Amino acid sequence: MAVVVKFEGAKSARSPAGDNAVAQLQSLVAEELTRVNDVIIDRMESPVEMIPNLAGHLINSGGKRIRPMITLAAAKMCGYRGEAQLKLAAAEEFIHTATLLHDDVIDESDLRRGSPTANTIWGNQASVLVGDFLFSRSFQLMVETDNVRVLDILSNASAIIAEGEVMQLITANDTSTTEDNYLKVISAKTAALFEAAAQVGAVIAGAPAGEENALHSYGHNLGIAFQIVDDALDYSGAQAKLGKTIGDDFREGKVTLPILLAFRRGNDDERAFWNRTIVDGEQDEADLQRAISLLVKHDALKDTIERARHYGAMAKDALAIFPESEYTKALNGIVDFCINRTY
Amino acid sequence: MAVVVKFEGAKSARSPAGDNAVAQLQSLVAEELTRVNDVIIDRMESPVEMIPNLAGHLINSGGKRIRPMITLAAAKMCGYRGEAQLKLAAAEEFIHTATLLHDDVIDESDLRRGSPTANTIWGNQASVLVGDFLFSRSFQLMVETDNVRVLDILSNASAIIAEGEVMQLITANDTSTTEDNYLKVISAKTAALFEAAAQVGAVIAGAPAGEENALHSYGHNLGIAFQIVDDALDYSGAQAKLGKTIGDDFREGKVTLPILLAFRRGNDDERAFWNRTIVDGEQDEADLQRAISLLVKHDALKDTIERARHYGAMAKDALAIFPESEYTKALNGIVDFCINRTY
Repeated sequence: MAVVVKFEGAKSARSPAGDNAVAQLQSLVAEELTRVNDVIIDRMESPVEMIPNLAGHLINSGGKRIRPMITLAAAKMCGYRGEAQLKLAAAEEFIHTATLLHDDVIDESDLRRGSPTANTIWGNQASVLVGDFLFSRSFQLMVETDNVRVLDILSNASAIIAEGEVMQLITANDTSTTEDNYLKVISAKTAALFEAAAQVGAVIAGAPAGEENALHSYGHNLGIAFQIVDDALDYSGAQAKLGKTIGDDFREGKVTLPILLAFRRGNDDERAFWNRTIVDGEQDEADLQRAISLLVKHDALKDTIERARHYGAMAKDALAIFPESEYTKALNGIVDFCINRTY
Repeated sequence: MAVVVKFEGAKSARSPAGDNAVAQLQSLVAEELTRVNDVIIDRMESPVEMIPNLAGHLINSGGKRIRPMITLAAAKMCGYRGEAQLKLAAAEEFIHTATLLHDDVIDESDLRRGSPTANTIWGNQASVLVGDFLFSRSFQLMVETDNVRVLDILSNASAIIAEGEVMQLITANDTSTTEDNYLKVISAKTAALFEAAAQVGAVIAGAPAGEENALHSYGHNLGIAFQIVDDALDYSGAQAKLGKTIGDDFREGKVTLPILLAFRRGNDDERAFWNRTIVDGEQDEADLQRAISLLVKHDALKDTIERARHYGAMAKDALAIFPESEYTKALNGIVDFCINRTY
C-alpha cells in the first residue's frame, strides 16, 4: 500500500539541526555510549541461550538509544565524573526493550524496525518471559549504582509505564476519549521513562534542584512530543522508512491524537465511520485510505504535529536555564529530530 | 473426571504438624501479617481501577502468603525489631502474583485456586500489563527499605525466576529432559523466591552469616520440595480440593518429575505413548487415565514425593543450627505441610 501523507505547512518551522541531531548527540557521548553497549551486551547474557538471542534480536535492531544518550548527556552537562550513568543508561534500554517486547505481544505485531518481531520468531510466551527477565535485569543494574534516589525515580517510572499501558488498553476503541486523557496515557507510557532518563543524569551528578527539575521537564515534554509524532507517523509515508507498516494503530482501533481530532471535527457520517471501524472493529480494505483522507480533510495530522511542536518548545525552554553549550545544543537538537521525523 | 491417586507407602512418614503448620505459623506472625496485608492492599492501588481489580482478584483468592510469612518468621527468629519486613513481604507477594499472572497467560489456564483466572476475565493483555505493574511495585517497595543487600537479593531472585520460566518453556515437551535439568528449572522458577524470602529476614536483622546461609538453604530446599509436590499434585485427587484441574501439566505437555520418572522407567511401547502425547501433543480423552496408570505402575508419583521428602529433610537440617523455638517448629511444620498436601 503506497499511502503517502505530507504534513503541509509545517515545513517552514523545520530545524536543520534535527537531521543531524542524533549524530551530534552520539558524538558528544561516543565513548560512554560504547561502554553502555558493552554493559547491555554483558548483562543480557544468561546461561539460558534463548534469552540473549531473543533480547539481542530487538536490542541490536537499530534502536537509536535515545533514552540512554539523554542520561549520558545530562550527567555530563551537570558535571558528573563517575560511572553510574553507564548502568543507568543500560537499565533504561532494558526497561524500554521489555516494554516493546510486551507491547508487541499485546498488539500482536509482526514487524518492528523493519524486522519480524520477537513474538513472531520465538512466540508470545518467550517474549513475555524475556521481557520479565529484562525488567529484573534493569533493577539489578540500578541497584548496583547504590543510589536510593535513582532507584526511587526509575522504579517509580517503571510502575507508571505499566499504569499507562493499562490505561491505553482500557481507552482503546473509545472514540469519545478526550485529548486530556490521551495526554495522560502517553505521559505515563512514554514520557515517564524519558523524564526519568533525563532526571537521573542530574541526580547522580548531585546537581541543584533547579537543574534536576529542568531536566525532568525537558524529558517529560520531549517524551510527549516523541509519542505524539509517533502516533502521527503511523499514518504517514515516512513510516515505511522506519520499517513499520502504515495504519497499524487504525487496524488495532487505537484512538491516538490524529483520530481523536478527526472524530471531534467530523460530521455525523464521519463519526459513524470512525465508530464502525474503531469501536466495532469492522474494517475493510478501503477503510484505511478513507481514514487517512479524513485525517487530511480535518488537518488532523498537521495539527497533531503542531501539538508536538508545543511540547517540543516546552522541552527546549525547560533546558534554557542551562548556559548554552554543545550539550544544550545537542539536547535541543533531539527535540527537533523527534518532530522532524515526519518528513 | 474422578481420578484419585493415593501416594501409598509414604503415609507412615506423615507429620501431624503438617496439618496445622500454616495455622501455627500464621498465629506466630499474626500481627505482622495483618500489616503486610494492609501494605498489599494499599500498594496495589492505582488511579487506573482495572489494576487493583485484576490484581486483587488473584491476591485475595485465598493464597496462603507462605513466602511473606517465611520472611516475617525469619526476621523475628533472628531478633529483628524494625519494620522493613512488612514491605519486603508485600514485595514478595507482588512478585509471586506477577509471575502467576504471566504464567496463566503463558499456559492459557482457565482456573486458579478454584476461580476463573484473571486472563479469562480481563484478557491476556491486561494480565501481562498488571503483572508488569506488580513487578514494578515490588521494586518500589524494596527500594523504600533502603537496604542495598536486600535489593540485591530480591532483584537477583526476580531475574532468576524469569530465567527459570524461560528454561521451562524450552524444555517443555521434551521427554528426554533429565532430573538434573528439571531441578535446575524448579530451583530457578520456584525455589529462588523462597530462598530470597527466608534470607532477607536474616539480612534485615543483621544476623550472622551462618544464620543467613541457614535460612537461604532452608528456603531453597523448601521451595524445591514445594514445587516437586505441586507437580505430583497435578495428577492427584487432592488437586481438586485446591481448586485446580487434574492433568493440566499433562495436557500442556510439561515434563515434570512424575512423567520424567515414568518415561525413563517405561518400556518402548510406553515411551511411544509419552512421545505421542507429550512431544507430538496428540491426546485423546482416555490418555490422561493411561498416563496416570503408568505413573502408578512405575511408582512415579510415590517416588516423586520421596524426592520431595529428601529436600524437605535438607530444609529442616539447614534450620537445625537455630535453637529450638516456636519459630523453628513452625518453619519445620511448613516443610511438612508442603509435603503432606498430597493427602
